[in-house]
Amino acid sequence: MNEKQKLIETFENPNKERDYIIEHTTPEFTSLCPKTGQPDFATIILEYIPDELCIELKSYKFYLQSFRNDGIYFEAVTNQILDDLVGVCKPRYMRVIAEFNTRGGISSVIEVEYENENY
Amino acid sequence: MNEKQKLIETFENPNKERDYIIEHTTPEFTSLCPKTGQPDFATIILEYIPDELCIELKSYKFYLQSFRNDGIYFEAVTNQILDDLVGVCKPRYMRVIAEFNTRGGISSVIEVEYENENY
Amino acid sequence: MNEKQKLIETFENPNKERDYIIEHTTPEFTSLCPKTGQPDFATIILEYIPDELCIELKSYKFYLQSFRNDGIYFEAVTNQILDDLVGVCKPRYMRVIAEFNTRGGISSVIEVEYENENY
Amino acid sequence: MNEKQKLIETFENPNKERDYIIEHTTPEFTSLCPKTGQPDFATIILEYIPDELCIELKSYKFYLQSFRNDGIYFEAVTNQILDDLVGVCKPRYMRVIAEFNTRGGISSVIEVEYENENY
Amino acid sequence: MNEKQKLIETFENPNKERDYIIEHTTPEFTSLCPKTGQPDFATIILEYIPDELCIELKSYKFYLQSFRNDGIYFEAVTNQILDDLVGVCKPRYMRVIAEFNTRGGISSVIEVEYENENY
Amino acid sequence: MNEKQKLIETFENPNKERDYIIEHTTPEFTSLCPKTGQPDFATIILEYIPDELCIELKSYKFYLQSFRNDGIYFEAVTNQILDDLVGVCKPRYMRVIAEFNTRGGISSVIEVEYENENY
Amino acid sequence: MNEKQKLIETFENPNKERDYIIEHTTPEFTSLCPKTGQPDFATIILEYIPDELCIELKSYKFYLQSFRNDGIYFEAVTNQILDDLVGVCKPRYMRVIAEFNTRGGISSVIEVEYENENY
Amino acid sequence: MNEKQKLIETFENPNKERDYIIEHTTPEFTSLCPKTGQPDFATIILEYIPDELCIELKSYKFYLQSFRNDGIYFEAVTNQILDDLVGVCKPRYMRVIAEFNTRGGISSVIEVEYENENY
Amino acid sequence: MNEKQKLIETFENPNKERDYIIEHTTPEFTSLCPKTGQPDFATIILEYIPDELCIELKSYKFYLQSFRNDGIYFEAVTNQILDDLVGVCKPRYMRVIAEFNTRGGISSVIEVEYENENY
Amino acid sequence: MNEKQKLIETFENPNKERDYIIEHTTPEFTSLCPKTGQPDFATIILEYIPDELCIELKSYKFYLQSFRNDGIYFEAVTNQILDDLVGVCKPRYMRVIAEFNTRGGISSVIEVEYENENY
Repeated sequence: MNEKQKLIETFENPNKERDYIIEHTTPEFTSLCPKTGQPDFATIILEYIPDELCIELKSYKFYLQSFRNDGIYFEAVTNQILDDLVGVCKPRYMRVIAEFNTRGGISSVIEVEYENENY
Repeated sequence: MNEKQKLIETFENPNKERDYIIEHTTPEFTSLCPKTGQPDFATIILEYIPDELCIELKSYKFYLQSFRNDGIYFEAVTNQILDDLVGVCKPRYMRVIAEFNTRGGISSVIEVEYENENY
Repeated sequence: MNEKQKLIETFENPNKERDYIIEHTTPEFTSLCPKTGQPDFATIILEYIPDELCIELKSYKFYLQSFRNDGIYFEAVTNQILDDLVGVCKPRYMRVIAEFNTRGGISSVIEVEYENENY
Repeated sequence: MNEKQKLIETFENPNKERDYIIEHTTPEFTSLCPKTGQPDFATIILEYIPDELCIELKSYKFYLQSFRNDGIYFEAVTNQILDDLVGVCKPRYMRVIAEFNTRGGISSVIEVEYENENY
Repeated sequence: MNEKQKLIETFENPNKERDYIIEHTTPEFTSLCPKTGQPDFATIILEYIPDELCIELKSYKFYLQSFRNDGIYFEAVTNQILDDLVGVCKPRYMRVIAEFNTRGGISSVIEVEYENENY
Repeated sequence: MNEKQKLIETFENPNKERDYIIEHTTPEFTSLCPKTGQPDFATIILEYIPDELCIELKSYKFYLQSFRNDGIYFEAVTNQILDDLVGVCKPRYMRVIAEFNTRGGISSVIEVEYENENY
Repeated sequence: MNEKQKLIETFENPNKERDYIIEHTTPEFTSLCPKTGQPDFATIILEYIPDELCIELKSYKFYLQSFRNDGIYFEAVTNQILDDLVGVCKPRYMRVIAEFNTRGGISSVIEVEYENENY
Repeated sequence: MNEKQKLIETFENPNKERDYIIEHTTPEFTSLCPKTGQPDFATIILEYIPDELCIELKSYKFYLQSFRNDGIYFEAVTNQILDDLVGVCKPRYMRVIAEFNTRGGISSVIEVEYENENY
Repeated sequence: MNEKQKLIETFENPNKERDYIIEHTTPEFTSLCPKTGQPDFATIILEYIPDELCIELKSYKFYLQSFRNDGIYFEAVTNQILDDLVGVCKPRYMRVIAEFNTRGGISSVIEVEYENENY
Repeated sequence: MNEKQKLIETFENPNKERDYIIEHTTPEFTSLCPKTGQPDFATIILEYIPDELCIELKSYKFYLQSFRNDGIYFEAVTNQILDDLVGVCKPRYMRVIAEFNTRGGISSVIEVEYENENY
């Protein structure tokens, strides 16, 4: 578990025998561009089918806030969020969509997906 | 039948030989957070294919209102609504989508589904 | 043919060898609640693939208007519209979607479908 | 000061020499209909020009929540919110707009205004 | 008082010393065209500053429904609604806006206003 | 009266003692460009306060259709519609707004107004 | 080739080895109702996968304009546009969607499709 | 007259005795940033009351296109467009609004106005 | 000049004899709540009429970014932005509108205005 | 590698073992019509699944800007963008959608796709 993962708390899935979808959306993600040091802003959409564990909402907010002063690229941060969350809550399925604000007239969306092979 | 289920009335499906979809949407669901006691607000979308019974609309409204002063988590309440309704009207198919208002900058959607194996 | 069906006129499909979709949408459907006598309002979406016959638009308007002072439930009226139209124009495929206005904070959609087995 | 007013906390206006506008909007107001006991839902828009005191946001939320299980009419509750807040923070100007959800096919807006005569 | 006016009930204005605005909007008005007998549909927006009396919401709904099978022109019905309501509740100010659905590719809005000269 | 004006029929204003607003909007106006012969398309918004006479809706539709194969410029046609209608129904106030579709990447709006000096 | 087809010009597809989609949308289609002579208005959406030939845009505009004073039904004109264009440019796939403006409170969409069997 | 002004053609106002508004909107303005050489994009809204002369639409398009490869600041270009057009067509009133696309997360609007003192 | 003001650069107003409006909008403002340390997010709309000096856009972006890790209240930060900018560019008129994201179900807008008395 | 391709820079894909989607959208594409010399404007949507290499955002912007003064047809430019980008970054999948502004009342969309056969 890396430092960021330690911020994420979980609780027991109240309905393990059923596949169901949980989606959390926040328009308040911000990190820094590693090249220029300028802030980047994104909406993060997290969608998953829980197995044993659900992600606790408040700790998830703190996890996302921990990137506030990190310098990290669009593609890397989206992959890391997926990897960090999969590592902690081991879901049946998870998807992270990061919609970044316009830079130089171009807006970007990165979409990363994980499927647990046992399902 | 639990206390809440007793609130739900049904009427005979006027067209049993045909699979068709009924959808009821209400933006007026409210319950309490079990941790903080603060009110939560959600839009509840119910979609089902009736078998023998349809859900009576007014009693469904009273059923949803019965959560008004209950402390219950997002994931739990969405699963319970599905279980309660499936138990009472035994549909061919049912889906409950609960779209919760923003908390701490994060909005959440829980989507739960039931399929009767005989169809 | 029931009394309402006699209102519906048809014309010959100008292109029988091709499957194509005709969709008519009206936000001006109104009937009465059989319990309370209060008016209900809906948007009716009719979608079909004609076989030998197409539905004449003006007569379809008169057909829908004939429900204006009838007391009839959401589920029943949507199924009846499908049955009446299928009986008259014998389409390859037909779907009726009825989107009812909010009552008691809840809006409802009923969606009914017919497929001719020979296609 | 009535019981509800005691919930409202204030802080000193950081810029008393300048007239400026503060607006707080919440779509999460709910009370009960005094006739039927049914829940009502509204968006409350509060707009004011502070004089000596500003309204503390969290206590304002608790104040609005205190109506959750009160039976009170649209016109009365909107006037009361204005009176309660004017009484506590004595603003130069205040306006309360309450947008109530559709009931019986009719949505309602009540708009109440206060102007301190010394300005 | 004409027959329609008798349908309108009032209640005492809870705050007579203050000018404030009440607005009721319904997208569910329907009457008949006096020429063709065809149904017309409109959204009716009522805005008023009450004096001694407020209009009771449910009775206002019944009042509007009483036009359902009346043959009456756009301009006439909008003026009549204003006159009927002014006659019953004697407001300080009242405005009625009727937005009629498209007929022959043309949609129409009629806007009528009343001001009590004593204010 | 020119040829086009003869198409416009009027009826007596049902409420002459009151100033009120009538607005007719049609997105279905089309004429030809006098230079290129290419069709132009516009939404025409007519707003007026009637005096003795109101404009009959169906005849107004025929009046607008009479421009279908005329070659006429944006500025000229908007002024002519105002002049023709003022000439026929002699209103207290009238405004014509013509919103023309994009040509060469530029969309245009022409707005013309008439006020009867006696009001 | 009929008279209308002669208006359509083509150019060689710049990329024949790849299936790709070209879509042209115009909200400026108008023809006449064959019954009443009244103008009809539609948005025409043309979508196709070219084979040897692409449709030249300006000539396509003139082709659509040629219906301006023709009396023709919704279903017939949509099928004819597809047949005319398929006949001239022999595409791998083509779809025409015609969205007609509201008539008598009802809006209509006709959707017609062609697939070249060799693909 | 500068070089750009020579591109603008005018025609005689068809209705000089009446004040009326002409508005032309184009989302297709582009110039270059004088510092970085990077392209800027804006929507230009031109609104004016003509006196003797109206601006010919096609020549106005060419005038705006003449900035395509010019390096010029937001504030300067908006003022210049107003000055150039006022100089050529001498209107009673003119306003230019330039809405520039987001740069560095900031979008900008410049609004410049001219009033002829004789009106 | 405080430390933040030193970040703001200006350039000479290219058109001093004319009153005109400059508006800069950024949805990417973030600071910290002084109580909880949690990040706040806002859209900042700056509108001003320049006198001698215009605000350079890039330096304005850096100025706003300097609040990123400051703990400061909604009301205070909005007033400070106005004071800082007025102090540096001494405009004829300036308005700052800060639209803060939802916190506890309540969104807030603060609007502050400055007028130079010599205009 | 052609001259335009030399403008495109790449960086190593930070997550090669996973298929994920990168989407870049710019509403700021402009080129010239080869027939008339008039500017064309489009929104370019690029969507791809990277293999070894990702496209560097700033260089992609410069690549798109290089078309600014080129005369090139809609169909050709869309195919060229796909070919150029595939040639440089050799993705697992790529799609280019070009949405062109209205010309002669017709807007156009070109959609081109590439799939690497090894995936």
